[in-house]
This record gives sequence, structure tokens and C-alpha cells, in this order.
Amino acid sequence: MTLRIGIIGCGGIGQEHARRLHFKLAGAQVVAINDINLAAATQFSEMSGIQARVLDSHQAVIDAPDVDALVVASWGPAHEEQVLACIKAGKPVFCEKPLAVTAEGARRIVDAEVQAGKKLVQVGFMRRYDAGYRALKATLDAGTVGDALLVHAAHRNPAVPEMYVGDMSITDTFIHEIDVFRWLLNDDYVSVQVIEGRKTRNAHAGLHDPITVLLETRQGIRIDTEIYVACRFGYDIQCHVVGETGVASLPEPMSVPLRSNARQGSGILMDWKLRFIDSYDVELQDWIEATVRGEVNGPDAWDGYVASVTAEACIEARKTKQILPIALPERPAFYARQG
Amino acid sequence: MTLRIGIIGCGGIGQEHARRLHFKLAGAQVVAINDINLAAATQFSEMSGIQARVLDSHQAVIDAPDVDALVVASWGPAHEEQVLACIKAGKPVFCEKPLAVTAEGARRIVDAEVQAGKKLVQVGFMRRYDAGYRALKATLDAGTVGDALLVHAAHRNPAVPEMYVGDMSITDTFIHEIDVFRWLLNDDYVSVQVIEGRKTRNAHAGLHDPITVLLETRQGIRIDTEIYVACRFGYDIQCHVVGETGVASLPEPMSVPLRSNARQGSGILMDWKLRFIDSYDVELQDWIEATVRGEVNGPDAWDGYVASVTAEACIEARKTKQILPIALPERPAFYARQG
Amino acid sequence: MTLRIGIIGCGGIGQEHARRLHFKLAGAQVVAINDINLAAATQFSEMSGIQARVLDSHQAVIDAPDVDALVVASWGPAHEEQVLACIKAGKPVFCEKPLAVTAEGARRIVDAEVQAGKKLVQVGFMRRYDAGYRALKATLDAGTVGDALLVHAAHRNPAVPEMYVGDMSITDTFIHEIDVFRWLLNDDYVSVQVIEGRKTRNAHAGLHDPITVLLETRQGIRIDTEIYVACRFGYDIQCHVVGETGVASLPEPMSVPLRSNARQGSGILMDWKLRFIDSYDVELQDWIEATVRGEVNGPDAWDGYVASVTAEACIEARKTKQILPIALPERPAFYARQG
Amino acid sequence: MTLRIGIIGCGGIGQEHARRLHFKLAGAQVVAINDINLAAATQFSEMSGIQARVLDSHQAVIDAPDVDALVVASWGPAHEEQVLACIKAGKPVFCEKPLAVTAEGARRIVDAEVQAGKKLVQVGFMRRYDAGYRALKATLDAGTVGDALLVHAAHRNPAVPEMYVGDMSITDTFIHEIDVFRWLLNDDYVSVQVIEGRKTRNAHAGLHDPITVLLETRQGIRIDTEIYVACRFGYDIQCHVVGETGVASLPEPMSVPLRSNARQGSGILMDWKLRFIDSYDVELQDWIEATVRGEVNGPDAWDGYVASVTAEACIEARKTKQILPIALPERPAFYARQG
Repeated sequence: MTLRIGIIGCGGIGQEHARRLHFKLAGAQVVAINDINLAAATQFSEMSGIQARVLDSHQAVIDAPDVDALVVASWGPAHEEQVLACIKAGKPVFCEKPLAVTAEGARRIVDAEVQAGKKLVQVGFMRRYDAGYRALKATLDAGTVGDALLVHAAHRNPAVPEMYVGDMSITDTFIHEIDVFRWLLNDDYVSVQVIEGRKTRNAHAGLHDPITVLLETRQGIRIDTEIYVACRFGYDIQCHVVGETGVASLPEPMSVPLRSNARQGSGILMDWKLRFIDSYDVELQDWIEATVRGEVNGPDAWDGYVASVTAEACIEARKTKQILPIALPERPAFYARQG
Repeated sequence: MTLRIGIIGCGGIGQEHARRLHFKLAGAQVVAINDINLAAATQFSEMSGIQARVLDSHQAVIDAPDVDALVVASWGPAHEEQVLACIKAGKPVFCEKPLAVTAEGARRIVDAEVQAGKKLVQVGFMRRYDAGYRALKATLDAGTVGDALLVHAAHRNPAVPEMYVGDMSITDTFIHEIDVFRWLLNDDYVSVQVIEGRKTRNAHAGLHDPITVLLETRQGIRIDTEIYVACRFGYDIQCHVVGETGVASLPEPMSVPLRSNARQGSGILMDWKLRFIDSYDVELQDWIEATVRGEVNGPDAWDGYVASVTAEACIEARKTKQILPIALPERPAFYARQG
Repeated sequence: MTLRIGIIGCGGIGQEHARRLHFKLAGAQVVAINDINLAAATQFSEMSGIQARVLDSHQAVIDAPDVDALVVASWGPAHEEQVLACIKAGKPVFCEKPLAVTAEGARRIVDAEVQAGKKLVQVGFMRRYDAGYRALKATLDAGTVGDALLVHAAHRNPAVPEMYVGDMSITDTFIHEIDVFRWLLNDDYVSVQVIEGRKTRNAHAGLHDPITVLLETRQGIRIDTEIYVACRFGYDIQCHVVGETGVASLPEPMSVPLRSNARQGSGILMDWKLRFIDSYDVELQDWIEATVRGEVNGPDAWDGYVASVTAEACIEARKTKQILPIALPERPAFYARQG
Repeated sequence: MTLRIGIIGCGGIGQEHARRLHFKLAGAQVVAINDINLAAATQFSEMSGIQARVLDSHQAVIDAPDVDALVVASWGPAHEEQVLACIKAGKPVFCEKPLAVTAEGARRIVDAEVQAGKKLVQVGFMRRYDAGYRALKATLDAGTVGDALLVHAAHRNPAVPEMYVGDMSITDTFIHEIDVFRWLLNDDYVSVQVIEGRKTRNAHAGLHDPITVLLETRQGIRIDTEIYVACRFGYDIQCHVVGETGVASLPEPMSVPLRSNARQGSGILMDWKLRFIDSYDVELQDWIEATVRGEVNGPDAWDGYVASVTAEACIEARKTKQILPIALPERPAFYARQG
């Protein structure tokens, strides 16, 4: 069976997902698309060779009888309304980050889905599909280093544009760690502290960089994450889990070992787009297959909601310079963890 | 356009390729299959869900009007006849190693293809599609370490079954290096020497292990390869290219870095099947797409022929303990190197 | 000129230093010793072959006319009185950690030395003499990674005895980091926070393990150190300095790279005594030579005092779970940093 | 007891050894020196602060009643005569490489020493005292990788001066591997082959570079060594021993791990003098102590002779392009291997 997909939002990531689903992955076909810029959507549909119907509203795509499932890749503020419409229509939807721009909005999606009585929503946290994180999780789950006690992490970017300011190091950058550590540790957060230390001269005026975020989990695991987006030297994602009997780390991306110019070593990526590009394929292939089976297998609406709540707590902790609790309602049975 | 494929030979690798083509990759469908054991072919076709027609001869599969291209995965001695039949039928064919069991047989395929006037044959040397070798080749082609002068390589296997004897370390194991180094270096071999040194007690009676093969190329590059198939510790493929300004190496497969039990490091694969499993996907996806375009993009019949000639020279050099020339006819223009 | 040395305290470290000074290093001779257990001192003097005079009080050793310089290796509570006596006698003294058991006591030594008008005291912080830390400091001082912004560190021990309890993770373990980071960064501390996270089941009842200490320096550098003394897997000292353009790390101790048993990697020390053993030689050789020149070249009384003040602040921060300021008086010009 | 030493030859290495023995190591004193350039010897004796007597012939140094032992650091062609004179005088002698410039000359030293009936001669093969090789040997001797089967080695130098020509890659460079592999493997050589492959454009006209030397040992171990002295990128010594159950490698020299400029890794030395500089200290300290005990503990005259025989066979094998036997007489019981 081929899953027939409607795309809502044809900007950069929407176009990439459309091509991936239609040409690269198995079992899916893009049949309808919409974008706020209809002309752009039409051009994309033709130039890409996808030749999907271009419909004049996201609702028209959702309602199209030959659309089995939706991909929401519009801009963030539109996500909530579009995802709610998918739920209302009873159609599975893959929504890019963020699920909603506020925790409250994400909560409304959770509530609507629970009320609909069927899991339909997956959120685009692709790191869970990265081969490195998966290998790390398998190692942890196998008990190779015993129970986790501490996590030391870093999210480093060589540079960010001028428009990247204020709390974007939380909402655009750290949001990935927020989701992936919960998944990696099978745990949730209970408190957060944010430390602004010495600022690099390489960060522009609107940005305090680097910062350190300290999270505490229900099990008492302490996670420190360096967020450093003007580090200059590379896009560098580090994650070291300290357990009762050892330390397990996220593998470095594959790179050719070199001995040259009085140095030995290997390259670090400069372009963040390359770091997790393979995980998008795995994520969407998995989504296609789960959707055909009538399941949601990946990060769900609850995960999207928890990420929003946590990010908001981080921002507040940063502002107040306090150690703040993260108050989460109990996870509904509806969203019970798999596996 | 979907490429409709006929499978000849449904043993282990044939079944894997059939599933891969039919379910995992984009743009292909398995429509007909044959195996010397028809009952097994029928069972596979049904159990796998592929539901292809089972035909009672390889010729019937080749001749089927809805079969656009063939995959030959029968046992080695049958390859020559089957590939020749594909050429005769004017249909593209992907043939698993070896192209033929003798250099003479491979030569007949080359001659037939040249006479047919169109490249149709690809040989299953999957290492050229491995991400590590590709990254290494890109590094060499970029001139990062200057012109290659020496290659130090190793092909290590933890253990081999009792049936693995005599020259199988050449024909079954080293054959991969024979192909991949030519491709990596854009070069051909001119001489070979084989050294049988101290034998490990872990090798069974019928096998001298390890051995070292020394190859010389037209450009004068010297390649030493350790072949050690009872090494016990892991499936371990090493390749270090020494150039005029540095050394570039094949990356290690991804593995979780661990600190535990008084050791730091990471795992080495024990199962050879896992080492190049991803490269099969890349290889066949590339073959599908090139075939649809009417091209042969990968290792061709000439490459299969050269591998056979080289392997035979290795065996002779081993027997005679001499440094032997490898006499290759000039590469026909028909088989000009791409890129 | 040979430096004639008196040893005060002949327990484990005292005996090691005596042998090192007398037999292994150049330019020194042990001529007199004392220990609270005179019989043990006598036995050591004879058995070791040093054949030094055994005197019946530390004061007698200090006063001996042929003793040019002293090594204090008695138990901690005795250090203050003995070092003060050396200062009073105008003789150079190398005092093992701690300089005194309270910051107040260390302060009295500082005051006495300033009043005496001549630097005489060196404290046994041997990490400053470790080849790895020295290489790291040289890299930082050369500006290779730009100005330091963050330090991520770990002090891991496989296990500690039952007698290691309470705040010993500060006073006996972290004390080394307290000294070495000040030196590495040419900086001082202004605040501290201590986090007790999830406790390992491998720590005994009297010990909360691991803990994390967060230090802030005058320059705003943030240092996080994991102290984990029941980590099981090895004695593992980590230090990663994140700068404006890169990250520089403490080298791992030399270890033979191995490929065996499905793993590649190298050993981690299990015995902390081996990790810095070479640095004792470098430290004392440097002390001999500086002493002969009439200088104090290594960690001085001020450094010992600052370490005590910082350790006390850590303990208070741990107890109160607050971020506490570290109040240091201005560094007297008398103790101006070298080079 | 202090060993009183006479130095014969005060060029670069002679001066270094004199300072090392006199100022840095324990238990030795340089009391007399000679050089073919007496003025230079006098100047060195004064400027260095050693203030040894400058005698007008090597024989005068050997005969001086207060000279207990000799260090021969003159130019190679003088070694044989000077070492023979030491043997005749019954005095221990440490002779820098080579023991003699021909195997025949080395043999005369062996014969003289056997006739004298007492081991007196040590040859300056310092690699046996390198911490890395020692750790590797300990790993092999412990059986960690089982019996050795193969050794893959490399001796790389960034560049060599114009005067370095012809067979100096054997006599000046590979000579170190010749000695150290015998020691590492507790074995001797039985055959040699030399391969001149593709020449780097970075080597000057008088030098074929790189070359590969293949040695076979009595136990059948096969050793391949790349000698590449215009490799540009660094002074890089590699040694990988492949055993029955694993591979053990020579550790890389300590270097600060860096992440910067889109690369991670660490430095490779450019100056060969730094690579084994610590091993000179260990070597001479060991020699002092063994000499005081009346022993020769390090590489002896037999080792020097075997190195000469092997080097001559390498040169002949290179010239003839043949696999040549290395004919060694049986090791005399007088030179039985220690431990």
C-alpha cells in the first residue's frame, strides 16, 4: 500500500520532506500540497517533478479524499491550527518542530487528540532517529554502563546569523536536547538552572553565548549542557552519559582519519544540516510504515507538549537566575511510553 | 518509472536483494524469479510477500516481457551463462561476484558485451558504495594527501568455517580489495607477490593464515594487504593510503565510545555481514537509477574481468612464491573510466 | 652544590619523597629525619639505605646546622606548626598537602612568611608538574583556542575506602582541581555551587557520590567538575577547556592501543598512584633547583591558603545548597604570580 | 658510589650525553673528555660548567685512573678502535651507534670482548628505553595478543638534508627498527627484501624515498616497514604487532587533543630529536646503575654486530632486488639473552 500524503507548507524543510517522501523513501507518494504562497507551491510541484495537486488552503489538503496523511511544515505559529484540523479530520499528521509556539497551544493539541481517542500526531524530533543516538540508547538500555547518573552534553555551532537572538539558544537549539535526553534516559525533568558565563567576543550583541543549562530528572540524573553557537570551530554535538559502572558517549560522525601538516585527526562538520540529514530519512520512513499500520511510533503530541513546557521553564530560569521546578502533569495513560 | 526486475537465484543473497529491491528501495519491483530449487523459490516468493511469478528457468525470467532488468544471484559457476543470456536478450543485469569463475569466462562476457555494443552488466562489488571508502576516495581525489605512494591494508575476519580452504583467502576475501583499490586509486596492477608467514594456531588444517599480498600498480604504488581470517578479535577492514604529503585512512565503522572495566575504546564488529550492509542499499539504489537512465554506473564487466585476472595471478604467485607480472590487455575504450 | 634535606614525617609519602630525593633526583641528599614514631623512622633510615640521622623532634631536624631545607610529610594537623617553625628558622620548606587544616591556619603561615620577608614555603600540589597539564597550559598560553570560557572536568576514582566519608571528596580529592585550575587559567574563584545528584549504589553509606562542583572565576570562566570516587571503571582525570575558537583537553596517559576481543582502545589506570607519579619527580627536582637558587618556583603559601579558603567555601556551599561567593583578600604583591 | 666517566667525542650527541650524565642523572660525574678538536672540547668543558679535564687523546681518557667508564660519541669510523681500546683496558664503555661501520669491524669487537671474558660494551640503541616500546613489549610478553605473527611498521621523517643519500635510509634510519624489533620479539632475522616503489617528488635526486623493507624472523614473523623520510607531515614512528588474538600498537607520543578549525585531533612531532629524548635519560641512568653493579643490561656488542650484519644484508637486498638470507652465526652463550 502506498501512503498518499498532503504537504502543508513548502518552504525549505517542506520541499525537502516532499522530495524525500516522493522520490527517495519507499511506500509514499505526495498527492497534494499547499503553501501560503500558492505560486511558490505550484512552481515547486512542477519543477521538482512531483506534480502534486496544489490546493488553495491547508484545509483543502486535509480534506482531500485521496490524502491519507499530512506533513505540516509551515511556519511555527500556524502549526497549532493545522494540527488541530488534522486531528478533527481524523488524519495522521507529521508536524515539524515546534508542535505549537506555546506550551498552552501544545496542550490544546494533546487534549484534542486524547478526546479524539486515537494517536495521530508525530513531532519532527529527528535526533531520535540518528544512528549515533540510537546506538547510544541501545548501549544504555543494555545496561553496559549501569544506571545513568550524570549527562555531560554540548551543542556547538560555528556561528549563527544576526537574527538569532535572545532565547533562541533555548527554543531553536537546546529544544533538540530537551527532547532527545528524555527519550535517551526514559525520564522527565523536574528542575532547571541556566548559567550565563563569560561571553565570547565572537557572539554578536544580541546574544549571550555560551550558556550552560542544568537539568535534573525525576530519577535524579543531572544533565549539564553547554550551548555555544559561536564556537567557530565546528558543528559539534557531544553527549556523554556517566553511569554506575562506566561512561558511554555519542559517536562522532564518520570522518576520514588524516595525518598531515603536523597533525593527526579527522574533520568536524561545519554545516549543521549535514549532521542529522540521514536521520530525516529514517524518521520519515519509520513514520510512513507506522502510519500505514495505524500507529504513532515516534515522538508524539505529549513529547511536543513536554518540550514546550521545558523550554518555557528554561527561559524563565534564565531570566530569574533561579533553580526552577518544571511542573509537568502526569503523563496520560493514552501516551504511555512504548517499549 | 518503476524498474521491473527478475531475480535469478534465490539463495541467501538473492533473497536479500529481492526484499531490498521490492520493499526498501525506491523505483523497483520484483516481478519474476527463478531458482534451481523451484519449490524454494515459490516458498520465498510467497512468504516474503513479494508475490512475484516463479518461472521454471533463468531463461524464462530473462525473456519475460515485463522484466526490464535482471539480478543474477545464483551460484558462481552459473553466472557466465546467465549473464551472457542477459546480454543476448539486451537486458541490463546486475551480477553478484564473481562475474565468472575464470578470467577466461569473464573475458567472454566482456567480448559479448562489446559486440552487443551497449553496456549492460554491473558486478556486485559493493565496497565502492560504502560511505567510508567513498569518503576516503573523495579525500584522495581532492589531493588532501597528494599523490598516493603506498597503501597498507588489512582484511581480518574472526574465523571462517571448515569449508573455507586453500585459495579462498584470495577468491572470496581478497577479491574485494582487488576491486576496491583499483577504483580508489584509479589505477591497475602490474605485479603481485604473496607471502605466507607464520601460521596462527587458530587456523584449521586446510588453511594457511594469515598471508600478505603485495601488489604493484602502473603508477608504481605499492599495496600491502594482510589477509587474516582467523584473527579472533573482529571483522576489521583497514586501509591507509600514504601520499606525498600525508596519510588518509578508511574510517572505522560507527561505534559507541565506552569507558568501562579499566578500558576506553569502542567495539569492533564480529559479523562481517554488518560491515557493508548499508552499501548494498546504496549500490542497488544507484543501479536502479542508472538502469532507468540506460547507463551502467558501477563496476562493469571489465572490472569483473580484471578482478578475475588479478585473482588468478595472486593464486599463481602464491603457488610459485615468485613476484609475477599481471598481464592485462589495454582497457577498451568501450569501458573508459567515468569521472 | 648538594642540597641537604631534613624529612619530617616518614609515613608513606615521606618515605617515597626521601628515597626520591636521596637516590633518584640530582643535587640532593637526605641527612636527617624525624617521625612521631621514632622506631619506624630509624628502621626506614636503615632499611632504605639512606642512613640519615634520626632526630627526636621535628624541631631538632629544623635546627640541625647541616639541614639546608625541609620536607614536611607528617599528618595534616601537624603541618601548620612545623611550617611555621621552618619559617622562623629561615629555612626553605616543601610541605605536602594540606598546608594547614583550616584556612585560618594557612593564613597564619602566609602572614608569618610575609613578615619574615622571604618566600620559603612550597606546597605539594604536584599536578602543576604533570606533563599533560603542562602541555595543556602551554596550548592555552599560546592562544591556540583563544581565551578560556568554560572548563569541563572530572575526577574519577574506581573506589575509596570506608574511611573516606563526608566532605573528603572536597578536601582530599577536589583540592587538586582547586589548585590546578587556578594555575591553568591564571585566575581565581569568585563563587561556588555544589550539586548532589543521583547517588551510585556503589558508594558506601557515608558518602554521597558523585557530586558536581561549579566554580566561577574572576574572568567569568565557568568550571564544572564531576567528582565521582566510586566510578568502578578507572582512575580517570578529565579536563576540557573551551575557548573562543576551540577546545583543548588534557591528554590521556600513555597506554598501548589494542584491538582484541571485539574491542579497540586502550587501558585506563586503576591505581591513582600511577597517574601522577612522574610529576613528583619533576616537582621535587624543580624544588631542589629553585631552592639552591634561593627561590620558590612552585605553588607557594598563598596558593595553599587560597586552596583552603576555596575548599571551605565548597563545603559550605554543599551544606547550604546555595551559590556562595568565595571571598579572597587581594593577592599580596609579595606573592605576585610568576611569568 | 659515583661513576666517574670519560667522554670521547664532544660533538652534538657527546655534549648532550655529558650534560645529562653530569647534571641530570643520579650517580655519575664526567671527569675527563677528549675530542679530535681539542679547543672545542676545552670550550665545552668550561662553558657547560662540567669543568672536566680535557685530555689530548682518547687513549689518555681511557687510561685515566679516575675514569671508571667511557662514553664513545665520536664519529662512526672511530668507534671500533676506541671501543677495542676500552675492552683492552677492561673498562665499561657506552658506544653510540654504530658500534662499527662494518659488520666485520663489529665482529672484531665481539671477539675481543668474548676473549676478554667480561661484558663491557653497551650500544646506544635508545628505543629499547622508550616508554612506549617498553609498554608494547610488556603487553606482548604478557601474552595479551598471543604470539606475534606480523609486524606493520613505519619510520617517517618530514624531510632530510641533501647529505642524506643512498643507503642512509638503511644505515641511519632503519637501523633503529633493526635493533628494536629483535628486542621486541625476542627473535632474529633470517631473510630480507627491499622494495623501491613510487618515489615522492619531495625527495631530492640522491634519494629513493619511500622504500619498504620486509624482514622474516626465525619464528616466521613477517615484518614490513615503510621508511619514508620526506613525508612532509611529521616525525611519525608506527609499530603494530599482529598476534594470534589481537593487535597491539606503539602508543602515540603525548599531545594535547584539540578541537579547532573544523578538525579534531592532536599534534604530530616535526622534530625527531624530541621523539626519543626521554629515552636517553632512561638509557643512561640504567647504564650507570648496571655499570656500578658490574653488568651490561642493555643492547650489547652482539646486538651491535647483528644490527650491522642485518643492515648490510638490507643494502645488498636493495641492490639485487632479491629476497636474501641473513646469515648469522649462533648467538654465543656469552651473549645469552637476559630475562
